[in-house]
Amino acid sequence: MIPYYREVGDEVEVFDLCYKNRLPLMIKGPTGCGKSQFVAAMAARHGRPIIKVACNEDTTASDLLGRFFIKNMETAWQDGPVVRAVREGAILYLDEVAEAREDVIVVLHSITDHRRELYIDRINESLSAPESFMCVTSFNPGYQSGFKEMKPSTRQRFVTLALGYPPPEIEIEILIKMTGVAPAVAKAMVALADGIRKQPQLGLRETISTRLLIYSAGLINGGMHPRKALLHGAIESLTDDAKIIQALKDTAALHF
Amino acid sequence: MIPYYREVGDEVEVFDLCYKNRLPLMIKGPTGCGKSQFVAAMAARHGRPIIKVACNEDTTASDLLGRFFIKNMETAWQDGPVVRAVREGAILYLDEVAEAREDVIVVLHSITDHRRELYIDRINESLSAPESFMCVTSFNPGYQSGFKEMKPSTRQRFVTLALGYPPPEIEIEILIKMTGVAPAVAKAMVALADGIRKQPQLGLRETISTRLLIYSAGLINGGMHPRKALLHGAIESLTDDAKIIQALKDTAALHF
Amino acid sequence: MIPYYREVGDEVEVFDLCYKNRLPLMIKGPTGCGKSQFVAAMAARHGRPIIKVACNEDTTASDLLGRFFIKNMETAWQDGPVVRAVREGAILYLDEVAEAREDVIVVLHSITDHRRELYIDRINESLSAPESFMCVTSFNPGYQSGFKEMKPSTRQRFVTLALGYPPPEIEIEILIKMTGVAPAVAKAMVALADGIRKQPQLGLRETISTRLLIYSAGLINGGMHPRKALLHGAIESLTDDAKIIQALKDTAALHF
Amino acid sequence: MIPYYREVGDEVEVFDLCYKNRLPLMIKGPTGCGKSQFVAAMAARHGRPIIKVACNEDTTASDLLGRFFIKNMETAWQDGPVVRAVREGAILYLDEVAEAREDVIVVLHSITDHRRELYIDRINESLSAPESFMCVTSFNPGYQSGFKEMKPSTRQRFVTLALGYPPPEIEIEILIKMTGVAPAVAKAMVALADGIRKQPQLGLRETISTRLLIYSAGLINGGMHPRKALLHGAIESLTDDAKIIQALKDTAALHF
Amino acid sequence: MIPYYREVGDEVEVFDLCYKNRLPLMIKGPTGCGKSQFVAAMAARHGRPIIKVACNEDTTASDLLGRFFIKNMETAWQDGPVVRAVREGAILYLDEVAEAREDVIVVLHSITDHRRELYIDRINESLSAPESFMCVTSFNPGYQSGFKEMKPSTRQRFVTLALGYPPPEIEIEILIKMTGVAPAVAKAMVALADGIRKQPQLGLRETISTRLLIYSAGLINGGMHPRKALLHGAIESLTDDAKIIQALKDTAALHF
Amino acid sequence: MIPYYREVGDEVEVFDLCYKNRLPLMIKGPTGCGKSQFVAAMAARHGRPIIKVACNEDTTASDLLGRFFIKNMETAWQDGPVVRAVREGAILYLDEVAEAREDVIVVLHSITDHRRELYIDRINESLSAPESFMCVTSFNPGYQSGFKEMKPSTRQRFVTLALGYPPPEIEIEILIKMTGVAPAVAKAMVALADGIRKQPQLGLRETISTRLLIYSAGLINGGMHPRKALLHGAIESLTDDAKIIQALKDTAALHF
Repeated sequence: MIPYYREVGDEVEVFDLCYKNRLPLMIKGPTGCGKSQFVAAMAARHGRPIIKVACNEDTTASDLLGRFFIKNMETAWQDGPVVRAVREGAILYLDEVAEAREDVIVVLHSITDHRRELYIDRINESLSAPESFMCVTSFNPGYQSGFKEMKPSTRQRFVTLALGYPPPEIEIEILIKMTGVAPAVAKAMVALADGIRKQPQLGLRETISTRLLIYSAGLINGGMHPRKALLHGAIESLTDDAKIIQALKDTAALHF
Repeated sequence: MIPYYREVGDEVEVFDLCYKNRLPLMIKGPTGCGKSQFVAAMAARHGRPIIKVACNEDTTASDLLGRFFIKNMETAWQDGPVVRAVREGAILYLDEVAEAREDVIVVLHSITDHRRELYIDRINESLSAPESFMCVTSFNPGYQSGFKEMKPSTRQRFVTLALGYPPPEIEIEILIKMTGVAPAVAKAMVALADGIRKQPQLGLRETISTRLLIYSAGLINGGMHPRKALLHGAIESLTDDAKIIQALKDTAALHF
Repeated sequence: MIPYYREVGDEVEVFDLCYKNRLPLMIKGPTGCGKSQFVAAMAARHGRPIIKVACNEDTTASDLLGRFFIKNMETAWQDGPVVRAVREGAILYLDEVAEAREDVIVVLHSITDHRRELYIDRINESLSAPESFMCVTSFNPGYQSGFKEMKPSTRQRFVTLALGYPPPEIEIEILIKMTGVAPAVAKAMVALADGIRKQPQLGLRETISTRLLIYSAGLINGGMHPRKALLHGAIESLTDDAKIIQALKDTAALHF
Repeated sequence: MIPYYREVGDEVEVFDLCYKNRLPLMIKGPTGCGKSQFVAAMAARHGRPIIKVACNEDTTASDLLGRFFIKNMETAWQDGPVVRAVREGAILYLDEVAEAREDVIVVLHSITDHRRELYIDRINESLSAPESFMCVTSFNPGYQSGFKEMKPSTRQRFVTLALGYPPPEIEIEILIKMTGVAPAVAKAMVALADGIRKQPQLGLRETISTRLLIYSAGLINGGMHPRKALLHGAIESLTDDAKIIQALKDTAALHF
Repeated sequence: MIPYYREVGDEVEVFDLCYKNRLPLMIKGPTGCGKSQFVAAMAARHGRPIIKVACNEDTTASDLLGRFFIKNMETAWQDGPVVRAVREGAILYLDEVAEAREDVIVVLHSITDHRRELYIDRINESLSAPESFMCVTSFNPGYQSGFKEMKPSTRQRFVTLALGYPPPEIEIEILIKMTGVAPAVAKAMVALADGIRKQPQLGLRETISTRLLIYSAGLINGGMHPRKALLHGAIESLTDDAKIIQALKDTAALHF
Repeated sequence: MIPYYREVGDEVEVFDLCYKNRLPLMIKGPTGCGKSQFVAAMAARHGRPIIKVACNEDTTASDLLGRFFIKNMETAWQDGPVVRAVREGAILYLDEVAEAREDVIVVLHSITDHRRELYIDRINESLSAPESFMCVTSFNPGYQSGFKEMKPSTRQRFVTLALGYPPPEIEIEILIKMTGVAPAVAKAMVALADGIRKQPQLGLRETISTRLLIYSAGLINGGMHPRKALLHGAIESLTDDAKIIQALKDTAALHF
């Protein structure tokens, strides 16, 4: 079953061309805007399995490539996700790759080279990525501090696709499709989200995502009053600042 | 036996809907306000065991998922608390999750995804969380420095519930129920606590909690004078500053 | 044999009530004021063994709980001091607990919970603390920098007892009892100590402790001149600043 | 097959003399200017295999020299890339060597000494580099912060070759040769790149590379409009700043 | 053979009393003033072996207590220097103890307690220090930055002895005794040293030590001109600042 | 074959006396001035093998002393370079010792003590250095930041020899002897080097070394034009600053 994905711009064309030309792709965009959903849909579209790694500041090359384990007095090699993806010709999806440790770059360089070869020194094995293998990474420019910024020598190895929150009419469509919430409620929720997103003076680290709207819609469907659903499903997840929470509740009250 | 929990707001409704809709829940609130008590009561309400992990800055993914141990020349896998919780369909409660190391995020992402799947690479096993599994996390916004703040991409994966200290009449009820202290004493203690909580100029890192009131009531029940009981059971635990301690003792003396 | 301890305030009552009510106790006070002596005396009073751990910034949960060791090709589990204390129903005394690493907090939470249960994942064993088990911690507020400060969520888990240096008449009594020094000498030493403690302008990181007076008395008993005994037994241990050393020697010369 | 490389200056003469005189060579230049391509071409020219290591801040001496692995209860030594290069008399290419950890310097010193000897203590083996062995390193002066700067005692061990982006007429030639893009398109792309490279006021961490032009040409060949191809193939990879992206898009629109 | 040591003040009396009263001793003083020589002489005087550990910022409790080693498939325990000292009743000398890591404090606490007991958890063995065991530590107050300063709770566990460079007439005597240099040369060297030590405006991190005078005398005895001997044996070891080196050479030229 | 070394000052006398008197020697001087060459020549002069360790910030005591390795289920001890040097009575040369980690100091203390004994706890073996053993260290004062500065307590354990670049007439002689370059070319190169070394306003981290002149002469001998040879063999290795590179090229053009 192909996961639901509602195209907003030319993202499908970009993905298809990268897949065809075997170019690595980097997707950038804010949290909860649908990056993972998009990659899942594209993987299904091309009939390939997807192998996803949520990178973090402890992710190392070994986490990606694999490790030896000692089992019952014998050593066994366990492929890591990157090696599995190369072997299976899967879509490898490294989520928030900018968070990973630097030695992950070695791996990225190997599989984004025009040779697309991976040498795993521990098992002395060289793998050539099959045609169906594709490397997709994502990161969130909103977090880019000087410290964690990806080096240009890494970024310039990828075709880059910028995603954002969908425009209102599409976000309404998504909410209805994914949660079955009433159209009027979806419309009011998106109007509220749109208003919040246009208020940078709120000082939110990240603004309200499509995912939080989906959560809130889930609570509403369960019988909770929309104001309370938005408070627990979205507002309290956005900030801990009492004044901003009150401002967001007041804004929500205008729509419901 | 269902642990005693006195509802203050709509927290039970939120928990029930999350449990039903399989949404992950984050509880935020100050120390000793009853977060753990609440989760224990909810777990009992839904007839599920609770598996609790007190996270700290050394908590890693392996602490949560499990490890191989070498025992008598054979390797044995030991499930970590998260895996046990998924296997048993338990309520997993990650206390002060913001303190954990970053690689814990990988685990959080897996079990809060709509797929609710956990892949444990070390034993090459994929687990699907049963319907009864629920992931609950807590953190204390009072500690949130820039360094330890949870990333929005993690926070926006949870429905969020904010708890606080109960209003006076309920806190009195709780004290009496849990310690058997005399109503007049409970009333005086809560009046004192209420006064302290309203004095931000004291500069306490965190104010007096319900737990400290329960401790003090325990000392009083053991025969100690309330002033001394509050000094040792609460005031000295709040600060090391001689002037503030004196101010708190003076305040306490007004009530007893 | 019950170790000598001279009560100063209500510390014995506090300890006894905590022991009876199974409340964890935190003792705060300056170095060498008798914290360890007090705990040793209380353990003897209740007829329980004492297991003491001197915490430091490298102390981890494994240091407290235990470890597997490989011995002659078999693995053997070695209980750590906390597990031994729980098994034996001993008084566990974690000295300078604020110095320990953060993952020690997990252990503290378990054994200070009202459940007083300890789950040792490595050996998959759950221990319930017997009634005679008590957790006592100590720290020195004089060291509390922002970095090492204990988190309120940990501090509020303890009944707290503040100890200080004993008042002059009692400190004289202690010196005579513990070292056999002549009463006149003891009196002069305590007068000197009292004078030094009242001079914050000296800028000592910590002032002269009862322990240093006991050391100096030992040197005097061995035949050393009191001025020299105080120089080597106390003053040179307090500071490396030549001017302050001279000032302290001058002050000592006024008493001897 | 000798990889395509279009000489720009005297780089081939420098490489040949270093190869003949057995002098180690350091290549410095911006990302994606063809450093790796050049080394691959020179290795082929001299008929030697190339062994490449993408250094990063976790690269250690063991990564370069080799390790023992436990396999089926026997230990086996696995040569690292440097040892393999010395044994085979290959061209060793340490990419972005300034990123590696300091203990890599030991290895660099050994193989750049006039003795060109490598002692691998773990296997107690001394290797003399054959005549055909050559050590080539690269780094990107654009990244040189004080922290990561190579020490003069290391830098002064290498003959140094500075590479840059090729002049327009040569870059056009390269684009056509490597991607088969239409000459007019190649010309317009290089004109655009040239314009961007001459605008330091854009504040890009690194400017547009030849590699990104090749990526963009690939998308154009796949049927994408040049403006969109340049947006995804180059501009979005250069920066996340909305204003600069717009400025770059406007500039691109002038050429297409 | 008792090593040569020339007493300067009351250091022998202090050591003897500590040895007799089983009090731990801390010696503080500048580099090369004879601390180690003094301890070696005292150990010989009391007929005890000396076990010395040069502490540094990587010294851990395991370095002091011991470790398990795997030898030929059996594990063997190797006593560390502290355990050997306790077992043999030796003089344990921890040089520059302030440099060691914090977990060394655990060990210090155990062996400086009035119980003088050492529990080695790894081998589950309790050792009582015999009467002849003594713990001596040293540190150099000249290095005491806030970071490395010993905590008062550790310092107040020791009787403290401050050593300095000997007065001129004694230092001359030492030089002659230890190197056989001519009295006139020794006199001139000490006059020079005395002059340098009285010039804080030179800004030397530490001034010229007795050890450097002994080195220089050795070079002179080997036939080198005193000016050159002092340049290489002392001055160049004191600083890398060309102006200060010239100033010191000029001063030396006044004496030779 | 004794390696070529051209004495500049009294360095041979200093080395010989230290060797004879068994005093440890520290050589300080800028990069590429011939420190290693000098030590190699002195080792040959005294007929001793030289064991060299290029220290770096990851060098630990274990790197110097040795390690246990597990080989085919047996443990084997592998002597480190220091132990090998002591066993063989070799010249141990620790290059850039100030870069090593602090625990290396333990090793330095042992082998520079007047006892010259090395206790290797792991194999419980005590080694006395034979008469022919000598410890030589080097460091580069130009790098001495406060952080990496050697502690006076370590520096004062060595006789110190300061080396610099040779005066012009000697440097010309060295260039001709070592590369066979034409005298006129050597003269012009040294004149150029001399000019660069006298221009501190260039802001070079380190100035042009004799080694770089030797490299450049090698390229000239291979047929490269002197200006290009100096650009690649020296100038580009000195700096990445375009303006300074141009200034150095202009200066070079004045001589060739």
